[in-house]
Amino acid sequence: MREFRDLVMIVISLALSIEVPLRVAFDIGWRPLFIYWEIFATLALATDVVLNFFTPFREHHHLITDRRRIARRYLRGWFALDLLAALPLSWLAGLLGASGPVAGLFGINRLARIARIVPLSRSWHSRHLQSVHPSLVRLSLFLVLVSVFAHWTACGWIWIGGATPGAHRIDTYIEALYWTITTLTTVGYGDITPHTNLQRIYTMLVMIAGVGSYGYLIANVASFLANMDTVRAAHVRKLDEISSFLRYRAIPSDLQKRVMEYYGHLWESDSGSGETQMLAELPEALRTEMALVMHRTLLRNVPLFRAASNELLREIVLLLRPVLMLPGTTFIKEGESGDCMYFISSGVVEIVSRDGRRVFDTLHDGDYVGELALVLDQPRSASVRAAEYCDLYVLNKADFQRVLNKHPEFKSHIDATVERRMRRVRQRES
Amino acid sequence: MREFRDLVMIVISLALSIEVPLRVAFDIGWRPLFIYWEIFATLALATDVVLNFFTPFREHHHLITDRRRIARRYLRGWFALDLLAALPLSWLAGLLGASGPVAGLFGINRLARIARIVPLSRSWHSRHLQSVHPSLVRLSLFLVLVSVFAHWTACGWIWIGGATPGAHRIDTYIEALYWTITTLTTVGYGDITPHTNLQRIYTMLVMIAGVGSYGYLIANVASFLANMDTVRAAHVRKLDEISSFLRYRAIPSDLQKRVMEYYGHLWESDSGSGETQMLAELPEALRTEMALVMHRTLLRNVPLFRAASNELLREIVLLLRPVLMLPGTTFIKEGESGDCMYFISSGVVEIVSRDGRRVFDTLHDGDYVGELALVLDQPRSASVRAAEYCDLYVLNKADFQRVLNKHPEFKSHIDATVERRMRRVRQRES
Amino acid sequence: MREFRDLVMIVISLALSIEVPLRVAFDIGWRPLFIYWEIFATLALATDVVLNFFTPFREHHHLITDRRRIARRYLRGWFALDLLAALPLSWLAGLLGASGPVAGLFGINRLARIARIVPLSRSWHSRHLQSVHPSLVRLSLFLVLVSVFAHWTACGWIWIGGATPGAHRIDTYIEALYWTITTLTTVGYGDITPHTNLQRIYTMLVMIAGVGSYGYLIANVASFLANMDTVRAAHVRKLDEISSFLRYRAIPSDLQKRVMEYYGHLWESDSGSGETQMLAELPEALRTEMALVMHRTLLRNVPLFRAASNELLREIVLLLRPVLMLPGTTFIKEGESGDCMYFISSGVVEIVSRDGRRVFDTLHDGDYVGELALVLDQPRSASVRAAEYCDLYVLNKADFQRVLNKHPEFKSHIDATVERRMRRVRQRES
Amino acid sequence: MREFRDLVMIVISLALSIEVPLRVAFDIGWRPLFIYWEIFATLALATDVVLNFFTPFREHHHLITDRRRIARRYLRGWFALDLLAALPLSWLAGLLGASGPVAGLFGINRLARIARIVPLSRSWHSRHLQSVHPSLVRLSLFLVLVSVFAHWTACGWIWIGGATPGAHRIDTYIEALYWTITTLTTVGYGDITPHTNLQRIYTMLVMIAGVGSYGYLIANVASFLANMDTVRAAHVRKLDEISSFLRYRAIPSDLQKRVMEYYGHLWESDSGSGETQMLAELPEALRTEMALVMHRTLLRNVPLFRAASNELLREIVLLLRPVLMLPGTTFIKEGESGDCMYFISSGVVEIVSRDGRRVFDTLHDGDYVGELALVLDQPRSASVRAAEYCDLYVLNKADFQRVLNKHPEFKSHIDATVERRMRRVRQRES
Repeated sequence: MREFRDLVMIVISLALSIEVPLRVAFDIGWRPLFIYWEIFATLALATDVVLNFFTPFREHHHLITDRRRIARRYLRGWFALDLLAALPLSWLAGLLGASGPVAGLFGINRLARIARIVPLSRSWHSRHLQSVHPSLVRLSLFLVLVSVFAHWTACGWIWIGGATPGAHRIDTYIEALYWTITTLTTVGYGDITPHTNLQRIYTMLVMIAGVGSYGYLIANVASFLANMDTVRAAHVRKLDEISSFLRYRAIPSDLQKRVMEYYGHLWESDSGSGETQMLAELPEALRTEMALVMHRTLLRNVPLFRAASNELLREIVLLLRPVLMLPGTTFIKEGESGDCMYFISSGVVEIVSRDGRRVFDTLHDGDYVGELALVLDQPRSASVRAAEYCDLYVLNKADFQRVLNKHPEFKSHIDATVERRMRRVRQRES
Repeated sequence: MREFRDLVMIVISLALSIEVPLRVAFDIGWRPLFIYWEIFATLALATDVVLNFFTPFREHHHLITDRRRIARRYLRGWFALDLLAALPLSWLAGLLGASGPVAGLFGINRLARIARIVPLSRSWHSRHLQSVHPSLVRLSLFLVLVSVFAHWTACGWIWIGGATPGAHRIDTYIEALYWTITTLTTVGYGDITPHTNLQRIYTMLVMIAGVGSYGYLIANVASFLANMDTVRAAHVRKLDEISSFLRYRAIPSDLQKRVMEYYGHLWESDSGSGETQMLAELPEALRTEMALVMHRTLLRNVPLFRAASNELLREIVLLLRPVLMLPGTTFIKEGESGDCMYFISSGVVEIVSRDGRRVFDTLHDGDYVGELALVLDQPRSASVRAAEYCDLYVLNKADFQRVLNKHPEFKSHIDATVERRMRRVRQRES
Repeated sequence: MREFRDLVMIVISLALSIEVPLRVAFDIGWRPLFIYWEIFATLALATDVVLNFFTPFREHHHLITDRRRIARRYLRGWFALDLLAALPLSWLAGLLGASGPVAGLFGINRLARIARIVPLSRSWHSRHLQSVHPSLVRLSLFLVLVSVFAHWTACGWIWIGGATPGAHRIDTYIEALYWTITTLTTVGYGDITPHTNLQRIYTMLVMIAGVGSYGYLIANVASFLANMDTVRAAHVRKLDEISSFLRYRAIPSDLQKRVMEYYGHLWESDSGSGETQMLAELPEALRTEMALVMHRTLLRNVPLFRAASNELLREIVLLLRPVLMLPGTTFIKEGESGDCMYFISSGVVEIVSRDGRRVFDTLHDGDYVGELALVLDQPRSASVRAAEYCDLYVLNKADFQRVLNKHPEFKSHIDATVERRMRRVRQRES
Repeated sequence: MREFRDLVMIVISLALSIEVPLRVAFDIGWRPLFIYWEIFATLALATDVVLNFFTPFREHHHLITDRRRIARRYLRGWFALDLLAALPLSWLAGLLGASGPVAGLFGINRLARIARIVPLSRSWHSRHLQSVHPSLVRLSLFLVLVSVFAHWTACGWIWIGGATPGAHRIDTYIEALYWTITTLTTVGYGDITPHTNLQRIYTMLVMIAGVGSYGYLIANVASFLANMDTVRAAHVRKLDEISSFLRYRAIPSDLQKRVMEYYGHLWESDSGSGETQMLAELPEALRTEMALVMHRTLLRNVPLFRAASNELLREIVLLLRPVLMLPGTTFIKEGESGDCMYFISSGVVEIVSRDGRRVFDTLHDGDYVGELALVLDQPRSASVRAAEYCDLYVLNKADFQRVLNKHPEFKSHIDATVERRMRRVRQRES
């Protein structure tokens, strides 16, 4: 209801801000269509003024419904402007016998309504379009306002007699709009120029407004661009920085390529895109849900987790720390004591002998390694090496023990797996 | 006194910087009005030079009133320029019989005075308008200077014969100003163009100045915009960043909306707007006063605080830490030991059973919870859950004990409240 | 293979985006050359559509070769656009008897292909040109696209009759392109202006596009410049900051010069260019290789290291910490206990008596000092002073002991050196 | 010597880059003056090529004087360009009978020399003008290069027949330069326009160059402005931020004013301008000298320090920590144990009774307080309060003891002072 009313008022405001200047420019008489529109607009605007005294507003998370507070707030805020726009002054002027180009000017009070577009569209955005990019909303709004301003300027130019006299209305309007755009964009062909003092002063104001809004546009485009895709932008800036460091240090191009490749993979992997920091700022409830969604592939891939209860998953998901392994990195070394296990999110991992010569086994997406030493407090029974760029998730021993203690069903599941693996290891050794 | 003098000198400087170029451009004779003005300006400027030898200045928090230091500083600083501007050279030239367009040029020394506008307006700002936004001051100043420069340029164009000869003075001036604006804004219609070499060189300089100041304007508008409302701007940038992260990670739109909603509430709540950091930088005295003002709603709402002495409030106010609770979050869990109490700044909070099924009580703005366990060192006697987005203030047990010990009257007040609550709890249990 | 195909498709796309608008503008008939080209282009584009169903793509480090996933991805992505561009619509229109300027319009579907240039060139960059600066790639791409757009605009201008009629085709094209550039750059001479309503509307659109892309260009040039050489840029900004601090504090110009000199040397030395931070972000394997390359001069210069095994070098290189010494700094003081040794990367170092008056020895690039006290746990036997700006590498005692224990062959090498030095010291003392 | 040669080469390069295009544009014959100049320039450039084979260069703090390395570096670097510029091609062309406008083109090789201006001026700056602001140097260089480019463009315009034929050379040149500036600044009056295809293509290139360099200029002006006075700029940004926070929180204007006042004073005081951080980055030797210079007022004011040896001052100066006191702050409280003493850099401080009602004594710039308790390990004997904004320097007890132990002569000086003060205190008490 509230939303529909806002939308209607925006449409009426825009329609008025197009119609009124046209009437001023072309001195159009009171044809029936205009009279109906005038009546409709007056009624709609007046109704809006009345309704605003009964429309609750949000303050500090809460909807304020107290009528006196609503009225006080409205009277101090938009009331004066809304009332002004609701008055049918040009119609009254017509009744009093005013005519000619000056009579049209009496309708200008209607344009006051356009001032409400900015806050209305802002509150709309915060209520309904939160997932739409704010930059896009701002840019669209700016373009709408500039278009309206250009329309007003063109009509004003006609009103002060800048256009070729005697032409058809459409020709005149296009000529005036063409002059406006030529001037606002600072192209300035000079095929249409002012001749009277009034026109020259008008032109100066338009030029200055053009330069101002042009400057505003350029200043904004920069921030629009920068904010359009901040995550990617930060990555590109990082690459630029590293690339220029590498070239400054005259690193051989082969090593350069490998370093850049690493950053490319880091960017694609979970550990590189600022995930951890972004999550840390959220309250725990939201953080859990975000993590569940973001690690859904892992949770789907790891068979171990399929047996886990929902509650368990919510706990584990917050403990996982993403890590990117370079091809050839031996991240578990036989004989060392282990303090964590690894889940393979994507990539191929090899279980190898201590010297790395023999490959016992190959693990893929959804497998996990290193759980043995964690449970049995023995040294690692084999070395594990990344065969290519791998996305792993690390689960620390301390966290692991906490989870095991809390969830006995998961503990037995793990024990079974350990048993199966131990058997395979013994087979290998024998 | 000092301020009034500064204001008068700014007005005289501006008046001179408008009048002198006009006299140069139009070769106006010595009418009585001009003579009176010339005498007045000369006297005012000369008086200012003399007074400056006796005007103390501020250095490193202190007003320096030592006359020799004042004189030394003035002689090394503005003295030469002030003296130059005070000399009635054009009048002297008139006495010596100079006439024609060149004679007017002798008054140009007066324009030197405009150079003092920048430091004067700066010191004015730092003395009187500190709560006005610095960016606004800078922008206004830039516009005033550009306007003055445009006026000078237009007059110069008339002087070198660029305007249509024979026209009325007002027509000529508007034409020249129109040419100036057309050129400075780089619109360049080309309906008025230079014809002599001198005019062409003049035009080139104006074009270059136009491009330069245009570039300066654009470069500044960006920072003006950025600084206009830095607190809000930082929030919008944050939203942009999170929004693009969420879309990059393909988070479902429902969860996206809830995360964005959270940040919206965080922004509105006390804990989200950088309050803590801003306060931490202030010395204690100011920090206390800021906190008292910012938490006035809370202090007014919480009945507990109404009985507190002023001194106590000043202490407590520095200990409160704002926190935003998501709807449904159970922030006090029955049976756990408590180390803090919560004041409800805004929102609804429910006292519930351990499983969250039964709601015993509902608390609103100005209520507080969790004080029981703090005083009695018992486990929490009930769970407490946020029913909607809530702004709470946390008071830690350690801080709380310190305050209690220092203020026995507050301790007894608390004890009474505890007694009342305990009775209610016992009623519930029985 | 894949690369060659991409390249061919880019060339064909560009050729089409030049040829098609020209045919539209000039209404050129079906000469044999055009027919051959049309057939070739149609075949090439159709083949590309078919091949795309069999082209594996990379997702999350891995090449996806599953045909159904490839097909699904392509159908949801570029398929529609590729198919559209492959259709020989203008040829079909010709067969159906369409002729005149409107007939040419049927070929416009081919222009859809240009949309693929951006992602193609991006993936090319990430696959093959990783060591080329990303900013350069983006800038080139932007220029190519703007050129193509200017070409289209000029052809459109001819098509709607904006150019002088009756001229030779080349004259007409140059005139139209000249008009386009005049308008896009907002120069706007006004020697060629629109006359019909259609032309005026077209001109307005071009002007707005010009201002928009101009704003985009300016906004980007800033970031291009900033990213072109980020390492140097950060250094210059630092110098600016220090320089303005020094002048604000009215530091004497002699001291100013020395401080700036220090920062100049720091920048040239290893310790000043952010090396440490950049390395810390890399995984150990890459970090070692980077360090080996960056310190190759040192490793080549220090005779001690020539005897070291490759494995040892890889370990040591990660332990070295760069340090810049000011001339005259005594960094080893006789009698104090030492906890590190120094390798001289570049510069001259003097071994001096405790009071600094007598110079016993002078060491140069590749020498090392301070190893005595480290091995023998004695106090430093002499003072050491930098004779000029020196780049040193520090090796800490703890790290040193660890290396010694691991590499006995290096330990004996050190012992021999210590023996030799001790003898020299005793000679000095006797 | 080296510097003089560089300067001569810059002047010759600039002269050539002005003279050669003029000769091309106006087809001036071989008058004696030109012949002498041509011979001189050729000799100078050739000599420079030869000398460059013997000019040592700086690499990594050290001057490389090895001739083979110098030659290798030069041959790989600027040699080709220098040699090209040294060849008197236009003279040779004249000998071979070439004449007319095309003949002049043979001299264009000389323009290659201008490419050396950027590195030359950069190395000049880093050698001689380190205290001049880098931004200023860059801006000047950019303006010089743009001027040279505009000159070339104007000459090119004359050469391709763009200027009005038959006019005097000076008129022609001014017309061409006027056209260039009109186009480069995108003003585009359109009173001078291209007519042939060649002229139109030339104009397009100039327009594009104009837009490009304009964009570059704007992008740079922003960073020039930002870097012009970074210390002050950071302060203004801070004020903006606080000001918008205060207004957002609706802090009463009285408190707003006091907070802003605090930041104003903080900025003027030593503790607010980033001094500590800036110093921390310097090596100890430079840090000491900077501190000595920056605290010269304090050292001059505090009588205690006048008796101190130079060595002692160098030690103390590094221990002082600046602090800004608000008026009314009681920073020493009677009865509490003290762990630091205060030196008054500027401001008035009152020694008061415990309740703050009675003022025993007033201390000014150069006095110090709190030394009693430090030496005698007694509680503070009186309270001390800032009567206005005060700049103090704090010396901690631990640091103080270290200094006392090292410098017995300072210890006795302090003891004497303590004795004198104790007597005064006893008088007060009795």
